[in-house]
Amino acid sequence: MSDHDDTVLGEVLASFAQTPDPRTRQVLEAVTRHVHALVEELRPTMAEWEQAIAFLTEVGHTSDATRQEFVLLSDVLGVSMLVETINGDPHGTEGTVLGPFHMTESPQRALGDSVDLLGTGTPCVVTGSVNTEDGTPIPGASVDIWQCDENGFYDVQQPDTQPPGNGRGLFTTDEAGRFWFRTVVPSHYPIPTDGPVGRMLEASLRHPYRPAHIHFIAEAPGFREVTTHAFVAGSPYIDSDAVFAVKQSLVIDFAEVDDPEQAERFDVPVPFRHAHFDIRLARGED
Amino acid sequence: MSDHDDTVLGEVLASFAQTPDPRTRQVLEAVTRHVHALVEELRPTMAEWEQAIAFLTEVGHTSDATRQEFVLLSDVLGVSMLVETINGDPHGTEGTVLGPFHMTESPQRALGDSVDLLGTGTPCVVTGSVNTEDGTPIPGASVDIWQCDENGFYDVQQPDTQPPGNGRGLFTTDEAGRFWFRTVVPSHYPIPTDGPVGRMLEASLRHPYRPAHIHFIAEAPGFREVTTHAFVAGSPYIDSDAVFAVKQSLVIDFAEVDDPEQAERFDVPVPFRHAHFDIRLARGED
Repeated sequence: MSDHDDTVLGEVLASFAQTPDPRTRQVLEAVTRHVHALVEELRPTMAEWEQAIAFLTEVGHTSDATRQEFVLLSDVLGVSMLVETINGDPHGTEGTVLGPFHMTESPQRALGDSVDLLGTGTPCVVTGSVNTEDGTPIPGASVDIWQCDENGFYDVQQPDTQPPGNGRGLFTTDEAGRFWFRTVVPSHYPIPTDGPVGRMLEASLRHPYRPAHIHFIAEAPGFREVTTHAFVAGSPYIDSDAVFAVKQSLVIDFAEVDDPEQAERFDVPVPFRHAHFDIRLARGED
Repeated sequence: MSDHDDTVLGEVLASFAQTPDPRTRQVLEAVTRHVHALVEELRPTMAEWEQAIAFLTEVGHTSDATRQEFVLLSDVLGVSMLVETINGDPHGTEGTVLGPFHMTESPQRALGDSVDLLGTGTPCVVTGSVNTEDGTPIPGASVDIWQCDENGFYDVQQPDTQPPGNGRGLFTTDEAGRFWFRTVVPSHYPIPTDGPVGRMLEASLRHPYRPAHIHFIAEAPGFREVTTHAFVAGSPYIDSDAVFAVKQSLVIDFAEVDDPEQAERFDVPVPFRHAHFDIRLARGED
């Protein structure tokens, strides 16, 4: 028991001393120390503490099978990006946030297939390759991609108008480590603002927009998985991503192509847009 | 945009620079700094980050109108106690945690009424007074009390067997600043362990018990409200409260009384238990 507030932290840390798993103990102690330090710094009133409890509770209640408000909170505080960076390998392509929309399994598709099941939007061809850090192609690598449509919505956000799997595809690189698929140019879009995280952005006069991008997860046995984006060069908000995920090496030219021969090769009309994104995987295990 | 992980924190802090309300800005910046520091220290894997997201989400989903798992989390990390201590006034009775069971309004009762609506348990009389810091009685002060029953359950936990308001009462001090009521001796009890916070305690081999206590909130116009407990001296777990709320000044003797005259005065059988708890309020406003 304590008669002085400066012993509360010590009591709590001592209570975790018998934790059998060392990592669990380390996490519990670190969380305790940092949260106590935050409270000591802010010295919240009881009303503010109640607001914090209510905010966190609402973030939980806003999360369900197709919406993850805690991921969104982690994203807008730059925490997701920090964790992704910590887990990145300097020998591989730079990583960026997973985001909240990778909640369904992407349908397996053949190279060259279109992930655009609606036929609206600006036709786009994405080509690329998966290589080792020294440039050797990796055949049979898995490339999971997902993106929003030309209006900025993912399939799971519009179950009435988008078929499941629209904008998603799981591809396997060919014998030369290459992948290619057809899609539409994704749009910039706002993260969901109708929940507590949206109110937080509003209270700080922050805009909720993310620059246009296609999500990628590339993996192959014996290599470290990379979770990243290909950002559309020149997209609005490319310099002020609401979730701090832009890295210069991931900004890709989505160039307009008029060449009918190329269009025929990829089975798209002219003009179309073409992005090329090469991915490097570092050796190792996750 | 950032090419180095050490700029993510700077970018996030800069994003809050236009927050109109200074306190909101201070809170957002402090939360960001401390959470980033926690992540930098722990360097979580993606799987651990996902576990953290899932844990917080489950804490939210476990919270409803009669259960507040985020309050419980704050309690078992000693954060509630720290906030209460920060907001305490050294001129008043020491404060302690609000706890998660003050979710219904206590019924207004007359001095001497019983808050025990079932007539089981060990009869108990609680007497006390509300005074200024220099000992002057405060007539008309409000004294809100709530407690569990002799089996360790609050009314809201047992809606089928306990009538609403059992163990709760809102009293007003008499012209001499006094209050008194009848009840049963509360039991020590476990905090709810069937949710994510319970699993956390289990993972750290911490017991979930709180020593027996009666909750008090005392207030009067012109004085600072006090939220506190009267702990039952000698209760199991008095030295290892799961929520770190025990302060020596709040441990009260619940003495057995055999005197038939006193029993008649309070309208209780002999023997009964008697606790006396005087509360000091510091001048000021909340």
